[in-house]
Amino acid sequence: MTSADHTATHLTGVIPPVVTPLNEDRTLDVAGLEAVLTRMLDAGVHGVFALGSTGETAFHPMSVREQILRETVRVVDGRVPVLAGVVAPQTAETIERIDQAQELGADGVVATAPFYAITARPQIQRHFELLGEHASVPVYAYDIPVCVHTKLAPDMLVDLGTSGAIAGVKDSSGDDVTFRRLVAMNRAAGSPLSLLTGHEVVVDGAYLSGADGSVPGLANVDPEGYVRLDAACRGGRWDEARQEQDRLAALMDIAFGVKGQSGWGAGVGAFKAALQLLGVTASRQVPQPFDALDEQDVAAVEAVLGRAGLLPRDR
Amino acid sequence: MTSADHTATHLTGVIPPVVTPLNEDRTLDVAGLEAVLTRMLDAGVHGVFALGSTGETAFHPMSVREQILRETVRVVDGRVPVLAGVVAPQTAETIERIDQAQELGADGVVATAPFYAITARPQIQRHFELLGEHASVPVYAYDIPVCVHTKLAPDMLVDLGTSGAIAGVKDSSGDDVTFRRLVAMNRAAGSPLSLLTGHEVVVDGAYLSGADGSVPGLANVDPEGYVRLDAACRGGRWDEARQEQDRLAALMDIAFGVKGQSGWGAGVGAFKAALQLLGVTASRQVPQPFDALDEQDVAAVEAVLGRAGLLPRDR
Amino acid sequence: MTSADHTATHLTGVIPPVVTPLNEDRTLDVAGLEAVLTRMLDAGVHGVFALGSTGETAFHPMSVREQILRETVRVVDGRVPVLAGVVAPQTAETIERIDQAQELGADGVVATAPFYAITARPQIQRHFELLGEHASVPVYAYDIPVCVHTKLAPDMLVDLGTSGAIAGVKDSSGDDVTFRRLVAMNRAAGSPLSLLTGHEVVVDGAYLSGADGSVPGLANVDPEGYVRLDAACRGGRWDEARQEQDRLAALMDIAFGVKGQSGWGAGVGAFKAALQLLGVTASRQVPQPFDALDEQDVAAVEAVLGRAGLLPRDR
Amino acid sequence: MTSADHTATHLTGVIPPVVTPLNEDRTLDVAGLEAVLTRMLDAGVHGVFALGSTGETAFHPMSVREQILRETVRVVDGRVPVLAGVVAPQTAETIERIDQAQELGADGVVATAPFYAITARPQIQRHFELLGEHASVPVYAYDIPVCVHTKLAPDMLVDLGTSGAIAGVKDSSGDDVTFRRLVAMNRAAGSPLSLLTGHEVVVDGAYLSGADGSVPGLANVDPEGYVRLDAACRGGRWDEARQEQDRLAALMDIAFGVKGQSGWGAGVGAFKAALQLLGVTASRQVPQPFDALDEQDVAAVEAVLGRAGLLPRDR
Repeated sequence: MTSADHTATHLTGVIPPVVTPLNEDRTLDVAGLEAVLTRMLDAGVHGVFALGSTGETAFHPMSVREQILRETVRVVDGRVPVLAGVVAPQTAETIERIDQAQELGADGVVATAPFYAITARPQIQRHFELLGEHASVPVYAYDIPVCVHTKLAPDMLVDLGTSGAIAGVKDSSGDDVTFRRLVAMNRAAGSPLSLLTGHEVVVDGAYLSGADGSVPGLANVDPEGYVRLDAACRGGRWDEARQEQDRLAALMDIAFGVKGQSGWGAGVGAFKAALQLLGVTASRQVPQPFDALDEQDVAAVEAVLGRAGLLPRDR
Repeated sequence: MTSADHTATHLTGVIPPVVTPLNEDRTLDVAGLEAVLTRMLDAGVHGVFALGSTGETAFHPMSVREQILRETVRVVDGRVPVLAGVVAPQTAETIERIDQAQELGADGVVATAPFYAITARPQIQRHFELLGEHASVPVYAYDIPVCVHTKLAPDMLVDLGTSGAIAGVKDSSGDDVTFRRLVAMNRAAGSPLSLLTGHEVVVDGAYLSGADGSVPGLANVDPEGYVRLDAACRGGRWDEARQEQDRLAALMDIAFGVKGQSGWGAGVGAFKAALQLLGVTASRQVPQPFDALDEQDVAAVEAVLGRAGLLPRDR
Repeated sequence: MTSADHTATHLTGVIPPVVTPLNEDRTLDVAGLEAVLTRMLDAGVHGVFALGSTGETAFHPMSVREQILRETVRVVDGRVPVLAGVVAPQTAETIERIDQAQELGADGVVATAPFYAITARPQIQRHFELLGEHASVPVYAYDIPVCVHTKLAPDMLVDLGTSGAIAGVKDSSGDDVTFRRLVAMNRAAGSPLSLLTGHEVVVDGAYLSGADGSVPGLANVDPEGYVRLDAACRGGRWDEARQEQDRLAALMDIAFGVKGQSGWGAGVGAFKAALQLLGVTASRQVPQPFDALDEQDVAAVEAVLGRAGLLPRDR
Repeated sequence: MTSADHTATHLTGVIPPVVTPLNEDRTLDVAGLEAVLTRMLDAGVHGVFALGSTGETAFHPMSVREQILRETVRVVDGRVPVLAGVVAPQTAETIERIDQAQELGADGVVATAPFYAITARPQIQRHFELLGEHASVPVYAYDIPVCVHTKLAPDMLVDLGTSGAIAGVKDSSGDDVTFRRLVAMNRAAGSPLSLLTGHEVVVDGAYLSGADGSVPGLANVDPEGYVRLDAACRGGRWDEARQEQDRLAALMDIAFGVKGQSGWGAGVGAFKAALQLLGVTASRQVPQPFDALDEQDVAAVEAVLGRAGLLPRDR
């Protein structure tokens, strides 16, 4: 874990939030997970993020979460850092999950602000300080107000970075104005934080604002595209980046066009349907209380994949 | 548990959400919990609700939650039904907690809508159906949009009651208009649900609307007052009820006046400070990342208790 | 207007927000307005509120708003106080409307917090102070967060009452907990404010909390019911009040059951459909961009009216 | 106006929302407005937007709004198109303002979704259709959920563009993900809409996403910077664009650092303080119920301007 500790301290590049393939009976599809991860690693991703929102962190019993992380660490086998989501409503439970994640070999952990109980900024800051004091691997703050109903203030994040409590931020806040300010504040403080965007259709703009990397759910479907996009952005080839991004944004219609499911079930349901259509996994099953996409939605996903030239028969 | 199954199926009266007294080191203060519960039982409450939001459900490691419920069941000793909060972000984890709660002797469980991942009505309804199918004790739906950011639709609740999935509702939605509609719909369906209000300053109005009972956090401080209020409401002595309610609403200023803490920490912090001032518990400690009320806020709580004639020296 | 100034300073009882009947071509139906008002006055209402949200304050050109208020003042003819809505996004325009309303004979005006531009509490307080300084008739604060996206703080309202800036509050906040606190704070300050609830299905509970009166949109359909409800509440006959309220709450299903329209269009659309079915007005037309209820929704309204025994043939 | 009709149909480039300089007594400072506009025109802006949120559209009596637009048209004198905000809570009043704006010589109008009354998508779409049918100049949709509490759906906007109801969108939604989708949908429909971003610190990213122009409030302070940024983006010189944008984002700290005012008053208050410090206007006055920035906040604005090298003595 020593080397991992190093590699996870200032992450850059593409770190996809890995979906959790399930068998029809909703148990973990280990072979499917292996296939998804191998495809990402072959594409050249720079890290993987297990047990994120996309990875069904909230949906599985604790024993299954341990199994997911264990298998992920086994398959990745040290080739890239493995981040683990440690999402829980409050501090004590988050700390329990940090302990589990470390024991199972995670190179870094990703934690949200507290949720459920109403919690103000001083307590949110203290929460991250406690996590940082406790963890022996780097802690990333997960800014996802659509789930936790709190936006993390950029000055607080930079303070937490300066004090060493957190190593970076996964920004899924949908607030590009504040992200630009966060970049500027972080730079002024000596760049203690690695800043990663979670919005797969505006990665190019986030890089232009100063992002260090991306955590795109859609990279489950097209990891090569995101690796190319990352390279173009880092190389300053912005028009090439824009074209790749426009192509990937069109591919994201697999999620935006879903009609039979909504919210979480539409996005992750579409990623899973695409992986099944691409022959990567055997099933598109999702956890209770959601249902897998129905035939009509699968046909729509297939049409988008076809237009994008991603289906086997189109290649 | 057989008799418990019966008593928790149509709860009425005062069922306080019990605070979780802590020692200074944030371990469970078993003697304090015993004192709080004994005081409630002596006052004549009709049930107790452990591990609710007030009871720090979200804040403690799983092992401590088990300890809290075990001790609660032990102290109550079958005198009234014990409800247990089984609050978790999604279905699978909620079911794990139902199993634990049943094993530890809970007579009913209280579950919220899923939170964290965005979940629409069909999935929320399925969530409660799955809980109802799984549980062998009655399931109460906890309508608390301030925490889970979803309001439970009254027609869905009545459908879930009619199908037997849930036995009642704890309404902490702050929406008295919809509560009145829920009462009417429930009555039209043959009253499958027991309807309990969680708003301690308008219990009289909720009873006038047709509530079956209340789950008032403030009953940790003044259980006798809520038992009197319940009796007055059920006896149709509305002017008496109103006077008692006005007195209790004034007492609620212990929470509304807190300056050093906010949100969850202000409300539960004030209840705990009052219990310490009343000599019921030794400490007013709260879990991380919150702090106990500071001296200035404690003085304000003391002043309110004094005006209400509740302090030992005032009696 | 001298006497009116007096009568509007501490309003009590039933003060319905009057709908604005329209001809099919969306001009003001003066005869319809006269019929609606006469029916209310005959029922014994204690005031009327023109140009509220129900009265289409936001929907008509300024010239039509003047016509609505002029006709209302003419028909009421001093028998009860006439309140006029002076709803505008900011202070200067609100003051223009206060001048118009006073000129046209309003006995009091009803103003919201500023909306559109983001405005914090100090500016909201200053807004009401400026209105109070300017107006020669009493100003009522309209607490309607669902429209203006700000909740008026109870201590600010009582401060504004104590300083003489406002004479009362129309509470449409849907927050019965804070309303109870507002009543208590107002009482402690010597009751400078008249406190009126705008929620037609929980008027009994609001009176139990200490309301001085109600502003129920549904009183357009059944003014007699609300006059009876008011009398029962004021007489302390709470069980009678509750029965009347339950009957009126069931009648409110005319609005809750609408399928073809939503939001504002469902509520006011249903009131207008009911008035047409009752033979009070000739048309159920509503302003652009809304449409009148369609035949299917009208049939549903008719069924509710029938069950309530309000249709001519049922009498 | 014929030529103006043409130039406002597919706007591109920098179209600043012009502040409304006031004298200390809160009357319009005509000389100040002339100075602000002349500075913008000298810098090479491609249009101006009067009576936007920044331009105090909501704050002034109708007569003053007419004066503002009249003077703006007079000063601009046909050199660039003049857009006029026609912000009103509902359709009928918006149409009145369109008539006024056209009469006073506006080349295009900018209208929000209805606000105040709760209005769903079909009515919002109808609202814009009615505006488009009525107006003889191009109508721009103003997507500003922070003020009107509705987000305009991208497919609705493209439909309205295709039918000719609207000519473009001013996007102040803060939702860069949906903006990217709007660009793609607009392109697929043949680009009926001109798409303008209102977020001054991420204009480069918006251009990368496919924006046609920007409406930056900060261009009141530094119009030349935004003209340079626009040229760099349109020329594909993205690294140059990014540097200019980073500089302008740092300048935006004049607004983010304000302590004595909040919301609208902080942003526009800071722009006005900067213009006073730059010697463009004589006063930094703002309309009731807001106050101009206090000395401490002015000093903070001055420090930011100094760091940016914008103060006269720094040049």
